[in-house]
Amino acid sequence: MTGSLSDTRRHFLHSFFYPESVAVVGASKNEKRLNFNLFANLVNLKFPGKIYPVNPNADEILGIKAYPDLKSIEGNIDLVVVSVPVGSTLDVLRDCIAKKVKGVVLVPGGFAETGETGKTLQDEVFGILRKSGIRALGPNTLSPFNTENNLAIAFRAVQKLARGRLSLIFQSGLYDPRINWLFGEFNLCINKLIDLGNKMDVNEVDALEYLGQDPGTRVIALHLESIAGDARAFLRLLKQICREKPVIVLKSGRTEAGVRAAFSHTGAIIQSSDAVFDAALKQAGAIRAQTLDEFFDLAKIFEYLLPLKNNRIHVSTGPGGEGVLAADLCQFHGLGLARLSPRTYSKLRAIFPPWDINDNPLDIGVCSQFHRGVDVFTVALEAAAGDPGVDCIAMQARVDRLEGPSRFLETAPGVIERGKPVVLWMTVMPQGENTIVHQLEARRIPVYPSAERAIRALSALYRYHSMREAIREEESS
Amino acid sequence: MTGSLSDTRRHFLHSFFYPESVAVVGASKNEKRLNFNLFANLVNLKFPGKIYPVNPNADEILGIKAYPDLKSIEGNIDLVVVSVPVGSTLDVLRDCIAKKVKGVVLVPGGFAETGETGKTLQDEVFGILRKSGIRALGPNTLSPFNTENNLAIAFRAVQKLARGRLSLIFQSGLYDPRINWLFGEFNLCINKLIDLGNKMDVNEVDALEYLGQDPGTRVIALHLESIAGDARAFLRLLKQICREKPVIVLKSGRTEAGVRAAFSHTGAIIQSSDAVFDAALKQAGAIRAQTLDEFFDLAKIFEYLLPLKNNRIHVSTGPGGEGVLAADLCQFHGLGLARLSPRTYSKLRAIFPPWDINDNPLDIGVCSQFHRGVDVFTVALEAAAGDPGVDCIAMQARVDRLEGPSRFLETAPGVIERGKPVVLWMTVMPQGENTIVHQLEARRIPVYPSAERAIRALSALYRYHSMREAIREEESS
Repeated sequence: MTGSLSDTRRHFLHSFFYPESVAVVGASKNEKRLNFNLFANLVNLKFPGKIYPVNPNADEILGIKAYPDLKSIEGNIDLVVVSVPVGSTLDVLRDCIAKKVKGVVLVPGGFAETGETGKTLQDEVFGILRKSGIRALGPNTLSPFNTENNLAIAFRAVQKLARGRLSLIFQSGLYDPRINWLFGEFNLCINKLIDLGNKMDVNEVDALEYLGQDPGTRVIALHLESIAGDARAFLRLLKQICREKPVIVLKSGRTEAGVRAAFSHTGAIIQSSDAVFDAALKQAGAIRAQTLDEFFDLAKIFEYLLPLKNNRIHVSTGPGGEGVLAADLCQFHGLGLARLSPRTYSKLRAIFPPWDINDNPLDIGVCSQFHRGVDVFTVALEAAAGDPGVDCIAMQARVDRLEGPSRFLETAPGVIERGKPVVLWMTVMPQGENTIVHQLEARRIPVYPSAERAIRALSALYRYHSMREAIREEESS
Repeated sequence: MTGSLSDTRRHFLHSFFYPESVAVVGASKNEKRLNFNLFANLVNLKFPGKIYPVNPNADEILGIKAYPDLKSIEGNIDLVVVSVPVGSTLDVLRDCIAKKVKGVVLVPGGFAETGETGKTLQDEVFGILRKSGIRALGPNTLSPFNTENNLAIAFRAVQKLARGRLSLIFQSGLYDPRINWLFGEFNLCINKLIDLGNKMDVNEVDALEYLGQDPGTRVIALHLESIAGDARAFLRLLKQICREKPVIVLKSGRTEAGVRAAFSHTGAIIQSSDAVFDAALKQAGAIRAQTLDEFFDLAKIFEYLLPLKNNRIHVSTGPGGEGVLAADLCQFHGLGLARLSPRTYSKLRAIFPPWDINDNPLDIGVCSQFHRGVDVFTVALEAAAGDPGVDCIAMQARVDRLEGPSRFLETAPGVIERGKPVVLWMTVMPQGENTIVHQLEARRIPVYPSAERAIRALSALYRYHSMREAIREEESS
């Protein structure tokens, strides 16, 4: 299962993520139209392949020669992005066949999710493509993204692509309205992203198969409303991938109300009960996220940090009352509070108030109050990091205490390199991109806006490791 | 139980919330010291009563005459805020007795939570005060706050007090580091706030009793690590108050790890198991928050909106995939998706894409795409509001669509007045205080950062009503 480049090059999705040439049919010159960004993102993000805008009413778009139709393009085309009125789709596809393109991205909605007529049209589209051997993503998709070659198919202007080792699979455009926030302020670093839309052809098994082999992908986050094909094949593949790469799953359409909503939106049909699906995910070793916030929180921590082999945590908070909440959260989420060695205790004692306090959770708030000139956060970090009984560190941090003369930013990377992840939460998150949060995150310290989100995310790193070990043991016995 | 002003005036806590004169012992002239703000907040927020800084080394603080000790003050003193080294506490209290003050706030930590010596000192302090009849808050507290008279006892500079009908009780300073964020960006409007600290004298029963009667308090949010006194008396009182006013409870120290942390931090001893406590809360009709985020989210919605008598919700989202998640969330949280009337359907149909879509959850994202010049959010709001089968409205909103020419801000207040609460969440929250979020919240539309938080909060409005009805029926039968 360990991916090699040659494996993924042979996979048909390779042309979707690494096309050497892309044509955008319906590309617009008008900045106010959605179809403008569909093409402009390729130019502005500096996608290195050949790009062809196709629009019979334009000579050029952003200085790049435009073509009236696909057939007028001289060179080969790997990938065609189609964003034309639904009724014109078949004409474009005939040109695709003539040009022997490898893959097609069908952007528009208006197919199977709209009812019988749309379903018939979608079936017709699929029939034509299948006969020609051309693979298709969508319809009803805004993707793919690949940060390795700055490929981004989107209606909105993508401000930047943050490159990392996380790849995302969506069944619908959940990411789309927040894409600039995800790559910007939230600092989610991705490798690839694919939105399956109506899953007429390419489905979750194809996407998982490709990303499972993809050497650029170390973590997969998967959003599903339904399973398109053989559920057993899906689960078998999932289990195989989870041995090597963490897979986070957000499954919506879990309740009767959700199922009805999913059907009308991507034409998805959900086969089995949520409880059955939940059990199957556990057996496969996948991590289930309960909400969208959790989905992104977990995706982030797995991209930033390695799985956690042991669960002895050291917690620092200020105010102290938050330590009580954090201790509860640790126990709820399967983390244990580390028992510190006498040596660590005596290091921490240097920052205690004039009385004795608990060393875990440590009330770093009261320490700050009584040691105002002292770099208490770094003292606490170093003490916990040096203790062989501590596996990971979670701290409620104060912006003003980590900036300026604090050695925290220099000290933390060494701690993480020694295999001890550090996770922070801020009482009040500073806002925007150029804050201490991004300086911390550049050092692979994820920063969350609350204790519950930080500890829930951290605990998933341990949960994944435990599940994987349990599955390995089961298989070897 | 319906409070009248005369009731609370007779309660001993009245002097803590409405003192006519306050002395701050330990007030500092040095802006860098915590004890500076303890006094400066009273000046800067314009507390209207008499204020006396007490500091033997200052003639005046912020232009107000300072006194070397309490005995040198000519007038009567209702409330004395004590922030001196622990060892000097007894001397100050002797002066309090001599001056016949009504109440004392003991700010410093260093008492029972520090071990045997501190416990002995705390007992001695309590013995002296009890004999004299003076009531005491703390030690280990930063409070009270009262927005009706701009009273704020805090180490940090309080930028503003946002006045509302919510009163908060804390066992520890969870609110303290986020106080300016809570009153500012988060827009939590409070009436009173009390931090019980070590609960040497004033405890949760006293605070609940007072706020239960307090006409300015319509909602109570209560954080507890332990129950100080008679648990049955507490639950009896809680049940009585819940009939009239929603009470949100955040109980920490729920697990073994949390209990140990709580003990070392406020000296709290937890008596019974969390499951027993949970059941007791339900019987009393209180709403339990599971996390700190939820605690503040629920506090906010109960302050903004009235309990919800029925649970038929109308949901709009963009992207559509978020509608599937939202539908799941509604069902998980006990809300039902409203079935719209044919009339409402035809109103919504005007903003549909060129095909038929589901009307609940409504994919307002696709509507926006196909009706770019149309005020789709207001159309959706008005349609749902006009349907007798809709009890409340939840929308995922886009900042750019609610600003400018949109009639949303004008339309929403009428909807709420007709008894249909509106709750929004933003895909990406605009940041800071002077945003569309605050304009919406000024109209009593709470805005949350995610579907899960919006729908969880909204559902609590219905849960409270249902629990209260069930208790009433049980009692009348």
